[in-house]
Amino acid sequence: MRIALDAMGGDFGPVPNLAGAALALAANPQLERLFLVGRPDALQAEAARIGLTDPRVEIIAASEVVDMHDSAVSAIRRKKDSSIAVATDMVRDGRADAVVSAGHTGAAVAASTLKLRTLPGIDRAGILTPFPNDARGVCYLIDAGANVDSRPEHLVQQALMGWTYVKHVHGVDNPAVGLMSNGEEESKGNEVTKEVFARLAALRPLGLNFIGNIEGRDLLAAPVDLAVCDGFVGNVLLKGCEGTAKAFARALKSELTASRWRQLLAALLRPAFKGVHARMSYETYGGSPLLGVNGVTIIAHGSSNATAIKNALRVAAEAISHRVNPHIAESVTRFLQTPAPAPAAAPPTASAHA
Amino acid sequence: MRIALDAMGGDFGPVPNLAGAALALAANPQLERLFLVGRPDALQAEAARIGLTDPRVEIIAASEVVDMHDSAVSAIRRKKDSSIAVATDMVRDGRADAVVSAGHTGAAVAASTLKLRTLPGIDRAGILTPFPNDARGVCYLIDAGANVDSRPEHLVQQALMGWTYVKHVHGVDNPAVGLMSNGEEESKGNEVTKEVFARLAALRPLGLNFIGNIEGRDLLAAPVDLAVCDGFVGNVLLKGCEGTAKAFARALKSELTASRWRQLLAALLRPAFKGVHARMSYETYGGSPLLGVNGVTIIAHGSSNATAIKNALRVAAEAISHRVNPHIAESVTRFLQTPAPAPAAAPPTASAHA
Repeated sequence: MRIALDAMGGDFGPVPNLAGAALALAANPQLERLFLVGRPDALQAEAARIGLTDPRVEIIAASEVVDMHDSAVSAIRRKKDSSIAVATDMVRDGRADAVVSAGHTGAAVAASTLKLRTLPGIDRAGILTPFPNDARGVCYLIDAGANVDSRPEHLVQQALMGWTYVKHVHGVDNPAVGLMSNGEEESKGNEVTKEVFARLAALRPLGLNFIGNIEGRDLLAAPVDLAVCDGFVGNVLLKGCEGTAKAFARALKSELTASRWRQLLAALLRPAFKGVHARMSYETYGGSPLLGVNGVTIIAHGSSNATAIKNALRVAAEAISHRVNPHIAESVTRFLQTPAPAPAAAPPTASAHA
Repeated sequence: MRIALDAMGGDFGPVPNLAGAALALAANPQLERLFLVGRPDALQAEAARIGLTDPRVEIIAASEVVDMHDSAVSAIRRKKDSSIAVATDMVRDGRADAVVSAGHTGAAVAASTLKLRTLPGIDRAGILTPFPNDARGVCYLIDAGANVDSRPEHLVQQALMGWTYVKHVHGVDNPAVGLMSNGEEESKGNEVTKEVFARLAALRPLGLNFIGNIEGRDLLAAPVDLAVCDGFVGNVLLKGCEGTAKAFARALKSELTASRWRQLLAALLRPAFKGVHARMSYETYGGSPLLGVNGVTIIAHGSSNATAIKNALRVAAEAISHRVNPHIAESVTRFLQTPAPAPAAAPPTASAHA
């Protein structure tokens, strides 16, 4: 198992990437090679500083970095020697099994889409992101922002990719798939989701556990394993939920520091607040697979710390070992290429203007 | 000032509606008449039980109730004597200045749209919902779910209605308007929002403070007064944020009750947790105006308690006293009917097939 880490990616550069790499190497003996892709001088200095001397580590030179101000596609086309481009090249060329990046999400999506291409039967890749869910532990959302203006067939493909991932990696027998909408009733939805509803319902006889429309709140509470939506909606939703959790934490902090007495009590409750943080934080979950590309690409949060990077590397290892892409190919065959009944021979028709 | 309250609406029926009415009557001397619309026996019994004998109260008979299983438009067409229909009729007929309902949101939207019609220059109504925002105190979102599949002109109208409301009711001089998108950069967005971006940017010379694209997290933290999006997106976002706040509260409660020691400390911190709840809860904000209809319609949360109903009645009184609809008409004239420069006379063209 060989993973290429975009070691320059993310808001804090090499520091959390290398610290996370060290944690992952210690935790995962299956990890045979870990490529740190980026500026050799910066990476060597940081590796020396933290004493990262594991023989499984190899530094791969990439002279450029995509920064947050670059536009996604042009960054990949223009900065050909960027760390995310070089790391993705390694997957394309068979030198690595997966790429992990906490850098510019759009650039990672563009690099994977352009260099790895999509899997047969899949038109568009989708970002699968975990949410804490009281009923299931985790509920995944697809697409969290890889593509906008999805057509119905795209959302059906996203649903099948997500279903496959949750089934094989998360080990859920027949994941419950919900369609994100503006109400639970079948009549709710916009034009695209109403069409998707009909198409997913038609896949129930083939074994898809489609439970119908769900709402934003269901992500965190309802017994559903996968929520499907367009990447515009998913991105707005993901960031709204993240923002709400942070606003809640800020309000809590503000109240708990309002007096010395409250500060004292809060200090005694620190383990409880840490428990809440661990449950509500993306760091615990680590990384979001970009499903549908011909390779394994894991997107980590831009402000990932070492724990988040370690967990993103774990998510990459899981996608490799559970053979997500071959299973997606099976799902495409099962759900999208099941032959339709042969049409009756058309009767000969006379030309209207013979 | 005369307000019609759908006293049967909401998850808990007349009880919180009448308790909220009593609170509003005590708080607001400007409230001349408060019509409680619903089943007279149920309302009389509840009024007697809580000692609601204010002479400004009048019970208006409506024999039916729209329940959550009814479809919106058909409920209004079929249940002509429902409490929401009768309350909206009172506004249409000039017997009340506003209607307030915690019942079926779709039915309230349908009743107002069908009976009151939209204002001149406005094609579709929009639900304006407040979010707690660290920079501004409150940031409003429009549309939280009245309409899906919005076209660009609809979102421009929503932006202008929301801008007008925040300016005149919330008292913000020139509200900062953000367009909800999947990234802050101008290049981000789906086809509709990219077109809306261009149209809102074109209104800057006329005085619209359009700050560009914003993200889901900005609702709760960034210096923005109004966030604009399609009702499908807004509804998913609103419910996702609500669900996240509830999930955070559940995780907190679970940690704080995990031992007797934690329970004791948490009990001492109860005022702090109440402060967080007040800040993050919809009850504080009360009601969401349905902007764009020819009348004042306030939609309250389905699980409103007495405080939420009281605050929804306050929101109705504010919309009346600040003359929201005449101001929306001014904005339509100012921003949408400013004459375009006269085009140069077209040169005569020869017909291709003369």
